[in-house]
Amino acid sequence: MNRETTIESEVIFKGKIITVQLDKVELPNGKTSYRELVKHPGAVAIIPINLENKIVLVEQYRKPLERSIIEIPAGKIEVGEEPEITAIRELEEETNYTTAQLKYITSFYTSPGFANELIHIYYANNVYQLQQPIQGDEDEFVKPVEMTLEEAKIAIKEKRIYDAKTIYAITYLEMKRMRDEC
Amino acid sequence: MNRETTIESEVIFKGKIITVQLDKVELPNGKTSYRELVKHPGAVAIIPINLENKIVLVEQYRKPLERSIIEIPAGKIEVGEEPEITAIRELEEETNYTTAQLKYITSFYTSPGFANELIHIYYANNVYQLQQPIQGDEDEFVKPVEMTLEEAKIAIKEKRIYDAKTIYAITYLEMKRMRDEC
Repeated sequence: MNRETTIESEVIFKGKIITVQLDKVELPNGKTSYRELVKHPGAVAIIPINLENKIVLVEQYRKPLERSIIEIPAGKIEVGEEPEITAIRELEEETNYTTAQLKYITSFYTSPGFANELIHIYYANNVYQLQQPIQGDEDEFVKPVEMTLEEAKIAIKEKRIYDAKTIYAITYLEMKRMRDEC
Repeated sequence: MNRETTIESEVIFKGKIITVQLDKVELPNGKTSYRELVKHPGAVAIIPINLENKIVLVEQYRKPLERSIIEIPAGKIEVGEEPEITAIRELEEETNYTTAQLKYITSFYTSPGFANELIHIYYANNVYQLQQPIQGDEDEFVKPVEMTLEEAKIAIKEKRIYDAKTIYAITYLEMKRMRDEC
């Protein structure tokens, strides 16, 4: 596919999490256009299933949405951090559960039209509670929520589960169960 | 869940597609923090299946990724536009296929940590070719690609299909087929 060649690139905003950039590009037809870009370090999410066969999720207020939603545990990759380490760190910090076994599922760009955020999804069966609580990010307030697959499907209908990675995760679990039963 | 109350809000950038905002917020513990927010008008995507039972996708260069990927047809909602209209418009502009029947599947926030982009997913069976080609956005260069479900699953493994909505779509189709066969 034809590239869009960068003619000029201007950093508009450099935040703690995102960098916003405006690129002037040359299009395949020779004309020029502008692309609004959000640079993101990438993220990791984990689908944790506990010993009662419940999905461990977290409820969190999301400022961009001005509401709280229920999501699988996730977080951005720190500089130099391996995604597997991020996955276990976020699981421990957000839910107080941990695991010794991660299974890699897939990775996807969340919104390729304007952002380069890539999220890696892992699955962990039989997660178990830590004895000592872990201290998470000081500006993050999350509440663990445990749900059966049926409850999670209802939460999607009720728009309490409402984001790409978590809806993907529930669909993945549903397909997994169907495969086991079929 | 505890709200994060806005103390100050500064618009950093107002583009054609996104608006970037920096909000100072009061946290549940009384401390303050900053939230970097990307406002987006929302988008619609469509899972089109043609008469040969192939998925109709589009290959497109994505500047934020500096590469092209293969996605289901999608586009942002224009001001005042109904999502169903966006779905058919994008299908026609990007693939030259159309449909009279849309089935609503789900909606999700693509990246709730920093963006409010909500995408609505529709499904269309038996899409058929338009007689007259439709003119799309003048700065958008897309190439239609038709794939069987098996080919699409390989494209995910090969990272040619690599974004949330399309990987969700393929998983949805896989589950649908499993349900039909089970």
